[in-house]
Amino acid sequence: MEIISGFSKLSKKQKLAWLAAQIAERQSDTNQQEFIADFESYQHRDPKVQKLYDEFSENTLTNFYMPYGLVPNVLMNGKLYAIPLVIEESSVVAAAAGSAKFWLERGGFKAEVIDTKKVGQVHFLWEGDFKKIDVLFDELRELMLDNTALITANMRARGGGILDISLVNMTEVEPNYYQIKATFETCESMGANFINTCLEEFARTLKDWAANSEHFVGREKEPLVVMSILSNYTPECLVRAWVECPVNELGYFEEMPPEMFAYKFSKAIMIAKNDPHRATTHNKGIFNGIDALTLATGNDFRAIEACGHTYASRNGKYQSLTDCSIENGVFKFWIEIPMAVGTVGGLTSLHPLVKKSFEILGNPSVKELMELMAVIGLAQNFGALKSLTTTGIQKGHMKMHLLNILKHFEATENEVKQAVEHFKNNVVSFRSVRDLLDLVRIEQPIA
Amino acid sequence: MEIISGFSKLSKKQKLAWLAAQIAERQSDTNQQEFIADFESYQHRDPKVQKLYDEFSENTLTNFYMPYGLVPNVLMNGKLYAIPLVIEESSVVAAAAGSAKFWLERGGFKAEVIDTKKVGQVHFLWEGDFKKIDVLFDELRELMLDNTALITANMRARGGGILDISLVNMTEVEPNYYQIKATFETCESMGANFINTCLEEFARTLKDWAANSEHFVGREKEPLVVMSILSNYTPECLVRAWVECPVNELGYFEEMPPEMFAYKFSKAIMIAKNDPHRATTHNKGIFNGIDALTLATGNDFRAIEACGHTYASRNGKYQSLTDCSIENGVFKFWIEIPMAVGTVGGLTSLHPLVKKSFEILGNPSVKELMELMAVIGLAQNFGALKSLTTTGIQKGHMKMHLLNILKHFEATENEVKQAVEHFKNNVVSFRSVRDLLDLVRIEQPIA
Repeated sequence: MEIISGFSKLSKKQKLAWLAAQIAERQSDTNQQEFIADFESYQHRDPKVQKLYDEFSENTLTNFYMPYGLVPNVLMNGKLYAIPLVIEESSVVAAAAGSAKFWLERGGFKAEVIDTKKVGQVHFLWEGDFKKIDVLFDELRELMLDNTALITANMRARGGGILDISLVNMTEVEPNYYQIKATFETCESMGANFINTCLEEFARTLKDWAANSEHFVGREKEPLVVMSILSNYTPECLVRAWVECPVNELGYFEEMPPEMFAYKFSKAIMIAKNDPHRATTHNKGIFNGIDALTLATGNDFRAIEACGHTYASRNGKYQSLTDCSIENGVFKFWIEIPMAVGTVGGLTSLHPLVKKSFEILGNPSVKELMELMAVIGLAQNFGALKSLTTTGIQKGHMKMHLLNILKHFEATENEVKQAVEHFKNNVVSFRSVRDLLDLVRIEQPIA
Repeated sequence: MEIISGFSKLSKKQKLAWLAAQIAERQSDTNQQEFIADFESYQHRDPKVQKLYDEFSENTLTNFYMPYGLVPNVLMNGKLYAIPLVIEESSVVAAAAGSAKFWLERGGFKAEVIDTKKVGQVHFLWEGDFKKIDVLFDELRELMLDNTALITANMRARGGGILDISLVNMTEVEPNYYQIKATFETCESMGANFINTCLEEFARTLKDWAANSEHFVGREKEPLVVMSILSNYTPECLVRAWVECPVNELGYFEEMPPEMFAYKFSKAIMIAKNDPHRATTHNKGIFNGIDALTLATGNDFRAIEACGHTYASRNGKYQSLTDCSIENGVFKFWIEIPMAVGTVGGLTSLHPLVKKSFEILGNPSVKELMELMAVIGLAQNFGALKSLTTTGIQKGHMKMHLLNILKHFEATENEVKQAVEHFKNNVVSFRSVRDLLDLVRIEQPIA
């Protein structure tokens, strides 16, 4: 690769041409026209639609395809949903669909939003006596509210806005370190831009106020704002979802009686509560479902992941986000997870397939979406634990894996049939499938 | 929505038709043909290519487009890369490109892999005396190695395989609870299937061995395997990346001298070390870059996220994954993060654009990919902290936000120009942009 200046200013065609030339420089057998055509084959046929996608991000070359799938039959709080999931991993949609069907016959999922508070912070250094600024803080808070009144007008009209502004003394952590910590209600939006705009205004207000306050002298007049930024950790923007049924209605899993299944399931949860090695994988499975719905609804899965995992470590040890109980013959399984999402703003009104997702979900409110997120995470976790504690996951996975490898080798229908039969009792690997296909292709196909 | 049986057995056309009919039931003004056509417009023009994508997951309806962008000028260990990123969030690619350019002029990024060990566990309950099984464990280990010899043959030929198998006494956590904990080297693959297949074989071996051992009697002969599964937490599959330069070479940021920038930057890191609220958002930004490269290379971002966040909480408190120092006039900034990825297996050889990503990256080894992952995370974090500690992030964000809203209202070039000018001193919101456009569109454009 060579250094290039002004890459972002090039047209998409020029960017691709530069890249193709760079690749050709390295691999002389590169057909540059083909390289470019391959990328262009992923463009939307309508240039206006394509332009939309190009402008979501920067230096865009084309669209990366992610499978957009559907999980029908999800019963939540007595209402039936079909849930769109965007996920590149096999088995996730199938597992969610399996869990949805299982619980459909047992009363469905229940869910409720516990709270919807968002958090933001202005971090600053200030050399002075804490008591002095603490006493004056009511004055500063009023000023902050006044100075953001214009910014918050629309949000207040919708029932949201700034809930609280407080001063936090962090000098035990670091000399002179303080925070202005604020909580927000952002209604139907995720609220990042709203919160950050408020916070940057708080920071300006703080500096002006300190500079002009008659109570301060010298360095007291010069707080140093390190940064003003929302927190993605929102433990008070919290949702709970659960399922329950009598143990004996859980049914048989192959030859495993329901009591044994419930017992093993509860031990799997116990392990994920106590062993961070297991908890990581346990929660990873939960996010398989949540991230897929997050993508489908144009929300930000990095924010939701970071928040959920910090929440999982809140007791000083990284733990499972789900829990279960078996009491008086009743099996109960639940999740409690912070979930800062939006149904307006950001990509939600811009990405055409995100708009379709909302249509499929019946244009849910933000609370309903939070609940659906928790439900799909719980469904996913139930599916994973059900497989793990009964047949093991490799049976299903290796079947998918085998089909993927066969696809790679462009196996015919007949070859697929023979391979599936063969690998019922043999270990699937890239090489073993290739070897089998070599064999099958040299001999005559049996049927 | 209605309950549907056998949805997965329907063809894609039938699935879409069912969905369209369901939506029409709810919204009588739905044009079902248009609804279906919208979904179909995202299909690849080549049915063979489309079939590939359809089979990555289940119940697929179409492709969800994610912007595929490029970050040029990334200098790592003396070699120049262009890094493909798949990300729906604006500003991420631009920030990475900005950091890449900044460090290109200051020696570039350095990175090294510290270790590449993966982990798997068989969790089981066993009623007996720990000393008894502990003494016999060497025998069981040998048997496990023998019974997996066929499964591990190819991996061993490539220099990998099972590194170690140990017995872990977990009875302090729960009576009768033990683990077989194994470590693996999976070479160029992420190794999930390989590890899980080995573990399920370990579990079978454990059960057979216990049942047939002359040393055991009664319940000792019946260990209950709860589950056998890899751990996504791989603290020994670790990579480090860093940048450094003399403080005075950091240059001016608008009017901020380099010493002040380095000082504020180091305070931002201190805050992310000490406050989980900030650490969450700090690390979220790191994963903006890492997840985007993860997607572009067909790896699993849920696994990488879960692992990284558990690692961030390993000291009993959720903390920043990056760190910095200013010593002897030298600014140094680094990341240390576990990173279990693969360059073969899974989607890597199946997803056409993933193959292109590897071509663009110069077909890196798995260690090189781990290093690139750490570098893009570090670059992203540098960009975020640079914005936050200098101009604040809203300036850039609100510009992008404004352009997105203008796009939504199909603003003309002229209207865009006027809006950008207007919002230099006014608060951007959906409503304020709409109001301005209403005004501009009633009056004559100024030209």
